[in-house]
Amino acid sequence: MAIKTPFQLLMLLGVVFLASSVSVSSRRSDQDQHQENPFLFKSNRAHKLFENENGHIHLLQRFDKRSKIFENLQNYRLLEYNSKPHTIFLPQHNDADFILAVLSGKAILTVLNPNDRNSFNLERGDTIKLPAGTIAYLANRHDKEDLRVLDLAIPVNRPGQVQSFLLSGSENQESFLSGFSKNILEASFNADYEEIERVLLEEHQKEPQHRRDLRDRRRQQGQEANLIVKVSRDQIQELSKNAKSSSKKSASSEYEPFNLGNRDPIYSNKFGNFFEITPEKNPQLQDLDILVNAVEIKEGSLLLPHYNSRATIIVTAVEGKGEFELVGHRNENQQEQREDEEEEEEGQERSAQVQRYRARLSPGDIFVIPAGHPVAVSASSNLYLVGFGINAENNQRNFLAGEEDNVISQIHRPVKELAFPGSAQQVDRLLKNQKQSYFANAQPQQREEESQRKRGHISSISGGF
Amino acid sequence: MAIKTPFQLLMLLGVVFLASSVSVSSRRSDQDQHQENPFLFKSNRAHKLFENENGHIHLLQRFDKRSKIFENLQNYRLLEYNSKPHTIFLPQHNDADFILAVLSGKAILTVLNPNDRNSFNLERGDTIKLPAGTIAYLANRHDKEDLRVLDLAIPVNRPGQVQSFLLSGSENQESFLSGFSKNILEASFNADYEEIERVLLEEHQKEPQHRRDLRDRRRQQGQEANLIVKVSRDQIQELSKNAKSSSKKSASSEYEPFNLGNRDPIYSNKFGNFFEITPEKNPQLQDLDILVNAVEIKEGSLLLPHYNSRATIIVTAVEGKGEFELVGHRNENQQEQREDEEEEEEGQERSAQVQRYRARLSPGDIFVIPAGHPVAVSASSNLYLVGFGINAENNQRNFLAGEEDNVISQIHRPVKELAFPGSAQQVDRLLKNQKQSYFANAQPQQREEESQRKRGHISSISGGF
Amino acid sequence: MAIKTPFQLLMLLGVVFLASSVSVSSRRSDQDQHQENPFLFKSNRAHKLFENENGHIHLLQRFDKRSKIFENLQNYRLLEYNSKPHTIFLPQHNDADFILAVLSGKAILTVLNPNDRNSFNLERGDTIKLPAGTIAYLANRHDKEDLRVLDLAIPVNRPGQVQSFLLSGSENQESFLSGFSKNILEASFNADYEEIERVLLEEHQKEPQHRRDLRDRRRQQGQEANLIVKVSRDQIQELSKNAKSSSKKSASSEYEPFNLGNRDPIYSNKFGNFFEITPEKNPQLQDLDILVNAVEIKEGSLLLPHYNSRATIIVTAVEGKGEFELVGHRNENQQEQREDEEEEEEGQERSAQVQRYRARLSPGDIFVIPAGHPVAVSASSNLYLVGFGINAENNQRNFLAGEEDNVISQIHRPVKELAFPGSAQQVDRLLKNQKQSYFANAQPQQREEESQRKRGHISSISGGF
Repeated sequence: MAIKTPFQLLMLLGVVFLASSVSVSSRRSDQDQHQENPFLFKSNRAHKLFENENGHIHLLQRFDKRSKIFENLQNYRLLEYNSKPHTIFLPQHNDADFILAVLSGKAILTVLNPNDRNSFNLERGDTIKLPAGTIAYLANRHDKEDLRVLDLAIPVNRPGQVQSFLLSGSENQESFLSGFSKNILEASFNADYEEIERVLLEEHQKEPQHRRDLRDRRRQQGQEANLIVKVSRDQIQELSKNAKSSSKKSASSEYEPFNLGNRDPIYSNKFGNFFEITPEKNPQLQDLDILVNAVEIKEGSLLLPHYNSRATIIVTAVEGKGEFELVGHRNENQQEQREDEEEEEEGQERSAQVQRYRARLSPGDIFVIPAGHPVAVSASSNLYLVGFGINAENNQRNFLAGEEDNVISQIHRPVKELAFPGSAQQVDRLLKNQKQSYFANAQPQQREEESQRKRGHISSISGGF
Repeated sequence: MAIKTPFQLLMLLGVVFLASSVSVSSRRSDQDQHQENPFLFKSNRAHKLFENENGHIHLLQRFDKRSKIFENLQNYRLLEYNSKPHTIFLPQHNDADFILAVLSGKAILTVLNPNDRNSFNLERGDTIKLPAGTIAYLANRHDKEDLRVLDLAIPVNRPGQVQSFLLSGSENQESFLSGFSKNILEASFNADYEEIERVLLEEHQKEPQHRRDLRDRRRQQGQEANLIVKVSRDQIQELSKNAKSSSKKSASSEYEPFNLGNRDPIYSNKFGNFFEITPEKNPQLQDLDILVNAVEIKEGSLLLPHYNSRATIIVTAVEGKGEFELVGHRNENQQEQREDEEEEEEGQERSAQVQRYRARLSPGDIFVIPAGHPVAVSASSNLYLVGFGINAENNQRNFLAGEEDNVISQIHRPVKELAFPGSAQQVDRLLKNQKQSYFANAQPQQREEESQRKRGHISSISGGF
Repeated sequence: MAIKTPFQLLMLLGVVFLASSVSVSSRRSDQDQHQENPFLFKSNRAHKLFENENGHIHLLQRFDKRSKIFENLQNYRLLEYNSKPHTIFLPQHNDADFILAVLSGKAILTVLNPNDRNSFNLERGDTIKLPAGTIAYLANRHDKEDLRVLDLAIPVNRPGQVQSFLLSGSENQESFLSGFSKNILEASFNADYEEIERVLLEEHQKEPQHRRDLRDRRRQQGQEANLIVKVSRDQIQELSKNAKSSSKKSASSEYEPFNLGNRDPIYSNKFGNFFEITPEKNPQLQDLDILVNAVEIKEGSLLLPHYNSRATIIVTAVEGKGEFELVGHRNENQQEQREDEEEEEEGQERSAQVQRYRARLSPGDIFVIPAGHPVAVSASSNLYLVGFGINAENNQRNFLAGEEDNVISQIHRPVKELAFPGSAQQVDRLLKNQKQSYFANAQPQQREEESQRKRGHISSISGGF
C-alpha cells in the first residue's frame, strides 16, 4: 500500500495528545519526567500513505526505528484502512503477508486466485490472512457506517518495507501493467497497443494540460481520486453474490475469515471479556506465528497485572479511554549501548532498576507489550482493544493478581517467606483478598467509602500527562 | 570452495556486455538511462575462485552487497563449476548447504558418509542437495563434453560466506589434515609423523627450490594443478560402479538426485516448457524452502507476464539469447533511505512510481525476480533458463495475460469497470484475444503482416543496450 | 538474570591464564604468535552479574562481540550459576529460553505455572529447558557441596540480551511488583497499599539512614544479600516433597529433566565416553534446535580429530586439564572485510590458508567449534566437557581417524591415489594403524618405548602458551 503521496501529519481523531509521557515514582528514578514512553505510539506516529474523499490508509512508524528495544519487530508493520460507505479499494497486491482485522463497519473482501475468486462478508471482529502476492479488493458495503480495518503486514522482500502493485491505472497513477513495454503488451494480449491502452491503461497522452495541472495539485495534497472509489448499491449487490461469512462454528478453516468473538472468551466476567485466537487454534496464523486478540474492559474496570511468557503484543486502542502501566527496566532502550560499554569498561554500574511506563490511551493509540513485561490496563470509559501477538506459539499469560491462574499463589510457602517481607500466612491472606480473576473493579471494593476520594486522585495524576 | 587464488575478471563466454542498462519510457521517468539495472548480474559479476587447465569455479558477487533490495538474499550465494572431460574435483567439504543443478555434461558425484558412500550418475537437469559438511567429489565422466554445474550455497556459519575444507594436500595447497600438530596426527593415526606426511600430506620440506618457485608463479596466476585433476578412463569406470541415476519415476526420494525434466512440465505448449520442483514435492528442498525450475523458451516466443506471490527467483541464462522485462518501482534501491528520511521530514514526497527494468540476456547472465514483481521473458534464440527460488513454500505464480490461470480475468465485472478505463465488456474481449497460455508468440498473431516491421523495431531497441 | 551490580573481573578458579595464544607452525603462517585465539573464551571473559556470600552468577561475553566469525551466535548467551549448600535462588522470570545443565551438586528446581507447580531433583548431567517467562526458583539441597549450573540463554525480545524480572523485593533491590502504581496495586489485590507494601514489597520509607548507607556500599561492591539466600534443612525438606527426578528410562518426555548419562554413550571405550542428546531424541530441544553433550576424556587420552557437519558447539571445560586443536583458515575473523575489499579491488589475493588454533584448557574455559571445522581434544588430567550445539538438527559427526565412522576410509581407491601423495595401498595401511575409534591414547602405541620422550615434548610446547 505504498502509494505516491506527500506525507503529512495524521489528525485521525481530532486533537491528539502530542506529549506522551512517562510517570515515574520519584523514589525509583530521577529520570526526566518528560522523556518519551517508548512503548506508546500515539496516533500521530502514523504516516498517511493515501487519502481522498472516500477514505485513507495510514502506516505506523517502524517499530525498530522508534527504539532499539523493538529490534525483533523490524519485519512487522501496522496499517489502518478507513473508508466511507459504498466505496471500494481497487485491486492490488503487496509483497507482504497481511493479517486483517475489521475494527468496525461491514466489508466485502474479494481474494483472487488464478482459477477462481472468493468473496467474504466481514464485520467487526472478523480476521483473515491475506497471503503475500494475493490480488484483492475491499468494499465498504454499508449504507452509513465507515469501514475500519487494522492490518499487520509481514513483508517478504525487504524487512519492514511493503510495496504495493496496483492493477488499475487512472489519471494520476499507473497500473503496474503500464510498466511493460509496448512490444510485450502487444504480444501478451495479442492486440494493438492502442486498444490495450484504451481498455486497460489510461490515455495520458491525450489528456489536456489543465487536467494534468489539477492532477499534480491533488497529488501534492495527497488527494488522489482513484485508489478508493465510489461504488453503486447495484455493484455492491453483485460483489455480495456468493460471498461467505466468517464461520460461526469453528475458527479453524484454512482460508476463511474467523471472528474473534465467535469463540467463548478465554477470560470473562462482569468487568471485561478477553477473546483470543492463537496459532495452535488456527492454521492461517501458524506459519506466521501470530496471535490475534480483542479485549473489552468495562468503564471503571481493570485488566489485572499479568505478563506474556514469550509473545510481544502490539495493541491498538479502538474505542474508549483508559490507561496502561507497563513494568520494565530503567533506561531499557539504552541497555544495548550500556552492555557494549561494559565490555570495555569493567566495573561499571549495571543499571537494571525497575521502572514504570504509564500512559493514557485514546482511540487510535498503539502500545507494545514486550514478552515478560508485566502490564495492567484500566478503562475510564468502555475500552476496546485489538492486539496482534508476535512469537505467539506456546505463549502463556501469567497473572500476578486475582483468584484464578495467579502464578504467585503457586509459590511454596517457605519460599514466600523468603521472597516477601510478610509471613507466608500474611502473603496468602493478601492474595486471597481479590475474589475476581483476570478483570476486576479498578477501585478496591473493601473500602467503598473511600473510592470517591481515590477516583479524584487518579484523575489528578492522569491530568499531568 | 574458497580456495587461495588471485581474483580476476571472469571472461567466461568471450566478450561480455559490460554496460548493462535500463530502458525507461521517457514519460514514466526522468532517470538517467545509464544507471545500472540492479536486478541483472552480468557474468562479469562473478569472481574466479579457482582455475587451472582442467576447469574453474566462479562465485557470483553477494546479492546484498550489490543492492539493498536483496537484503533477504544475504545468506545465498551462486557458484558455477566447469570442468574438462575426464577430470575430477577432489574431496572436500564446505560449511554451507548446496543445491547442485547440472547445466550440461555428464558427471559422477560421490557423497561420503561415516559408514558408506553413494555415487550418482548426473546429467543435464539433475539436481541434488549436498548437505553442509558432506565430503564429496565430482568427476566429469564424459569423453568430450565439458561439465557445467550451477550451485546455490546456503552457508551455516557466517551469512553469505562459504569456507571450503580440502582433504587432499599437494604442492601448492594444504590438506586441512596438515592443520593438526605432529603430536595429534601421530596419536590419531598411531604412526610416525614421517609416514603420515609421506602418505597423506605433501613433503614440502624436501621440495627443490625451482618447484617452489614454479608453484608460487602458478598460484599468482590462479593456476593450481591439484584441485581439479585428470582422471583415467579406468578410474572413471571404478567410480561408476554402483552409481545410481536420478529416479525416473518420482522426484520425492530423500537423498537421491531428481531430474527437473522427469516430471511433466507445469506449463507447456509449442512456444515453451516450464519444469519446476517445489519444496512441497521434494523433501530435500523442504527444510531449505527452495524451489528449482528450468524454463525453455523457443526462439521468437515469450513467457507471458506473471509474478511470483512469495518466492524470489535467481535465474541463470544457460543457453540462448533473449530479454527480460521486470516491473518494479522507481528508485527501488533508494527506498530504504527515503523511508528513513520520511520519518524525519514529514510532508516529503513519496516516490513509488512504476518503473520498467529491462535487459538483454546472454549465456552466463543472472537476473533476480523479487516476490510480487511482474516479469516477462522473450527469446531471440532458443533460451534455456535455470532458476533457484528462495522462500518457495506456498509460492503461487499469477499470470497477467493468457487464457489459463490469468488472475485478471477473475475480477468481478463491476470492479473491472471501476479499475480500468474500458468497459467490462471491452476488458473481457481484450483478455480473450490471447488464446495461448503461459507461453506465446512474441509477435501479436492477428497482425501477421506487420510482424516483420515489429521485429525490426525490437532489434533496434535491443541494440541500444 | 540481569541484576543491578557493578561489573568486575571474574576470578573464578584462582589464577587464570590471561594470555591465551595460538600456536602456529612456522611454515604455515607468519602471523604474530601473540594474537588471540578467537575460538577460546578464558573464564575471565565472563562478567559477574551478581555475587554475595551465598553464590554468584556469571555471564559470558557476547560471542558476536568477540569476533565476527560468531555472527550466527548473536542470540545465544552462556551463564554460569554457582551457589553454596542450603541456599536458594529466589523466584524470577526472564525474557529468554534457558537450557540448564547441572555441572555438579544437587538441586531442586521449581517451575511455576498458572495452575500448578513442578519440582525436580537435579544432579550432575541433568538437563532441562526452562521456557521464556517461566517463574522458577533453584535450591542447593546438598549439605556440603556447591551447586554449579550452566545455562544457555536464547533471548526472545532483543538479540543477545537477557532481562530478569525478580518477584521478591528486599533491602537493596525491587520486586517488579513495585513497578505498578499504588492505584493499580490496591485495585489488583483489593487491599490498602500499606498492607501490600508491608506484606509483598519492602518498606523502604521506614528504613533508617545507616541501613540505606550499608545497602549502597554493598551494592557498589556487588554484594547483595537477597537474590541468593540461606534456606533451612526443613525448608529444603518441604521443597523436596513431590519433587521428581530425571527419568531413568527415557530422555523423551516433554517437560521433565533428562540426564545426559542415562542413555548409553554414543561413543565409548577405555579412553573416554561421549554422551549426547539431540533435538531428534528430545522434544524439549526440538524447537530451539539445540543439542547437549557431555564428554569424558581420560588422562593421557585423545578425542580423535573430527568435525560437525552443521552444528556449532559451545564447549565448557568443567573439570580437568587438556588442550584443543581446531583447524580453520588464516585470518578467519578478517575474512568478511577481505571479501568486501575483493569486490572493489579485483585481482587481490584471497588468503584461505589452513591455520591451527590451539589452546590449553582449564576448568571454566569455554571454546567454540564452528560447523565444518576439524577439532581434536587431548586430556592431561581427566577432562570433563559439557557442550551446547546450535543448529543441531541433522548434525553428523565425521571422524578423520580411527577404525569406525572414519569418513576418509570411504573414499574410492583411485581417488585416494589422486588426493594423497601415497599410493591407495599406503593410505589404507596407514588408516588401519589406529585400532581405536573416537577416543585413543594420546601417545602412538606402536612406539611405546618412545612415549616417555614424547610426553616431555608435549609438555614443553604447552608450557609455552
